[in-house]
Amino acid sequence: MALIVQKYGGSSVADAESIKRVAKRIVDTRRAGHDVVVAVSAMGDTTDELLDLAHQVAPIPAPRELDMLLTSGERISMALLAMAIHSMGFEARSFTGSQAGVITDATHGAARIVDVTPVRLREALDEGAIVIVAGFQGFNRDTRDITTLGRGGSDTTAVALAAALEADVCEIYSDVDGIFTADPRVVPKARKLDAVSAEEMLEMAANGAKVLYIRAVEYARRHGVLIHARSTFSSGEGTWVLGPGQTLPNGQGEDMEEPIVAGVATDLGQAKITVIGVPDVPGKAAEIFKIVARSGANVDMIVQNVSAAATGRTDISFTLPKGDAAAALRALDADRDDVGFESLIHDDQIGKLSVVGAGMRTHSGVSATLFEALSVSGINIEMISTSEIRISVVVRGDDLAEAARVVHTAYGLDGDIEAVVHAGTGR
Amino acid sequence: MALIVQKYGGSSVADAESIKRVAKRIVDTRRAGHDVVVAVSAMGDTTDELLDLAHQVAPIPAPRELDMLLTSGERISMALLAMAIHSMGFEARSFTGSQAGVITDATHGAARIVDVTPVRLREALDEGAIVIVAGFQGFNRDTRDITTLGRGGSDTTAVALAAALEADVCEIYSDVDGIFTADPRVVPKARKLDAVSAEEMLEMAANGAKVLYIRAVEYARRHGVLIHARSTFSSGEGTWVLGPGQTLPNGQGEDMEEPIVAGVATDLGQAKITVIGVPDVPGKAAEIFKIVARSGANVDMIVQNVSAAATGRTDISFTLPKGDAAAALRALDADRDDVGFESLIHDDQIGKLSVVGAGMRTHSGVSATLFEALSVSGINIEMISTSEIRISVVVRGDDLAEAARVVHTAYGLDGDIEAVVHAGTGR
Repeated sequence: MALIVQKYGGSSVADAESIKRVAKRIVDTRRAGHDVVVAVSAMGDTTDELLDLAHQVAPIPAPRELDMLLTSGERISMALLAMAIHSMGFEARSFTGSQAGVITDATHGAARIVDVTPVRLREALDEGAIVIVAGFQGFNRDTRDITTLGRGGSDTTAVALAAALEADVCEIYSDVDGIFTADPRVVPKARKLDAVSAEEMLEMAANGAKVLYIRAVEYARRHGVLIHARSTFSSGEGTWVLGPGQTLPNGQGEDMEEPIVAGVATDLGQAKITVIGVPDVPGKAAEIFKIVARSGANVDMIVQNVSAAATGRTDISFTLPKGDAAAALRALDADRDDVGFESLIHDDQIGKLSVVGAGMRTHSGVSATLFEALSVSGINIEMISTSEIRISVVVRGDDLAEAARVVHTAYGLDGDIEAVVHAGTGR
Repeated sequence: MALIVQKYGGSSVADAESIKRVAKRIVDTRRAGHDVVVAVSAMGDTTDELLDLAHQVAPIPAPRELDMLLTSGERISMALLAMAIHSMGFEARSFTGSQAGVITDATHGAARIVDVTPVRLREALDEGAIVIVAGFQGFNRDTRDITTLGRGGSDTTAVALAAALEADVCEIYSDVDGIFTADPRVVPKARKLDAVSAEEMLEMAANGAKVLYIRAVEYARRHGVLIHARSTFSSGEGTWVLGPGQTLPNGQGEDMEEPIVAGVATDLGQAKITVIGVPDVPGKAAEIFKIVARSGANVDMIVQNVSAAATGRTDISFTLPKGDAAAALRALDADRDDVGFESLIHDDQIGKLSVVGAGMRTHSGVSATLFEALSVSGINIEMISTSEIRISVVVRGDDLAEAARVVHTAYGLDGDIEAVVHAGTGR
């Protein structure tokens, strides 16, 4: 008998029928003899509808009240899920983030978990109940106020509960079958991975893979939680995310050699800003990126051209999320004279391709394969950046899908059959 | 500077526009220099929609989970209301029933308030904030679970907060202007009362008047809370509900002689059951009403016919809420042989008219006026019951409106102009 934490996203509990389907899956797990703790998101579009209402009554809703409002979403889904399980003859109890002991800092809208004290959850489990917890929400001890965890909050709730309860596994359900070697909508020959290392998963999530939130994977790695990313719509195995020293539960694969490349991630959500004619003197780059940081933008890749000796000026390009570009451009433009650059170019037609694999550490020539594959296909590389286990390149957005396919093939990742693509995306 | 508790029902906060209108009224009260605590119901039909969802996932929803679900309704309205006030430049903080210190027993769906410890509300008031509290909900200390107060819960929350905070007044807002001498939709010449005694209000509420819930009035009388029933749609005075020793805030009216009759209440929500051929031996009535009570029915009026000497049998009639009739009939029918009665008659075409007035205690002839007015109009009286300050009669349902009009006139209650009737009913 194991203790299993399961997380179901908003699309898995979008209506009464979906809730009953999820309830059945939970009951099946209980019937198999396991203790079950479930973290659940708000139903379907509830959060967006509540946000819309908030903006109708207040242009800039007070953060404390916005959290109070949004947390009603999970309260609804968790109570309905507990009722549905109850009516199948199983004891189920729902708990808010606060009741579940999810303690956070006081940052409304993006609170960080600082402690988990699941006293009531343990009591309920000891009494044989299935436990349902509202995802995405917590409680600050100093202000005694309700908080929300921000993006990826429900995944993080699930992982944090799994850590605090020392669960055997944390199952993250979505509408895809697991983690793929590439986005199956982009690369039809993408294969589902049986397992991926947490560090690879982090790089893939940070570079465009959408199944798991980086924050949850990070929390899991730090606390030794074993994640199993699975589909709500099938009973098949998904993908295990293995932290240091963790192996597949069936013992298989632990002796397998790590593949050099685990997957190819694609990201169309970035824009590129080029600062033209920056005086080539020390401290100018620091000046520029201080301005960008103050605008709230999250800079990803940076490239500085070799200075043209004749002019004593250089160009600096960087990428950032499309949504951050406007604020960064405004901030830079306002300080143009202080910095002394000539002009700004904004390009939101780029695509980023990343090749991720822990095997890169011990294998040379990995980048050569990437560059050659792109070159043969006539795809131009605009920027390059690397980490220990990742190589990323920026190409034209229109070329990104083709680039992903040829690179996927070049690294021998192609499966025999085309992957089945479900509608929608997990959240 | 006074401390004012205000209660707004679901129809007062049905959409974003209504919420902004209520926010403005609250801000106006604050601007006038008063401390304000607001109890608010769920928006419009939210509670019904949540109940509908609950029944879609579970035929008989678990009571604990149903309370968890329904309390999300007030969580939404209170957060939106606090945001709306906040965006008008006033500090506002929302609190759940639990956060507000509304402690109840553990009866899910119909919990009773056992204590109110508004520590956080006092702190917020001391810091100059407007306080918004979720109506209808509380918290049980033993189970640590969320509870709901059942029908009239938000009114009761408001009165309980007013008592615990020693507020100067508890304003109950609805879409009618106050308490009328009769339902203006039935009696067009009904007049708004400036004041009514709590005991009269209790009799009127118990006999069909819908503006205030009996439970809230009872709580107010027991704890010396002054209620002011007002309209969300006008700034005019409503009706003050005066407990023992309380007078109108402007000092007016305290020397006025009590009117003999304060108002005429009408109720079409009752049904009549007649038990035919009951053996006329001691204990039979007790037997019958034990059976009815076990079925969960709330018996109102009871009439036992004079026994027919020849048969040694008698008939017993009683009234009860229409919704309770089916269960009572089933229960009686199941025990027919034990009790020894012959048959049952169910009549749901009745109407109850009640005349209420504290002056009845000291004036004779009050009932004669009632009976004569009905007799002149040819309206037949089927049952009669009285209390110290009330006379009720059952007539045909079709006759009820006409009966109310002639009785209203007979007691000199008619106003000079016809009352304005708003759409909908308060809740």
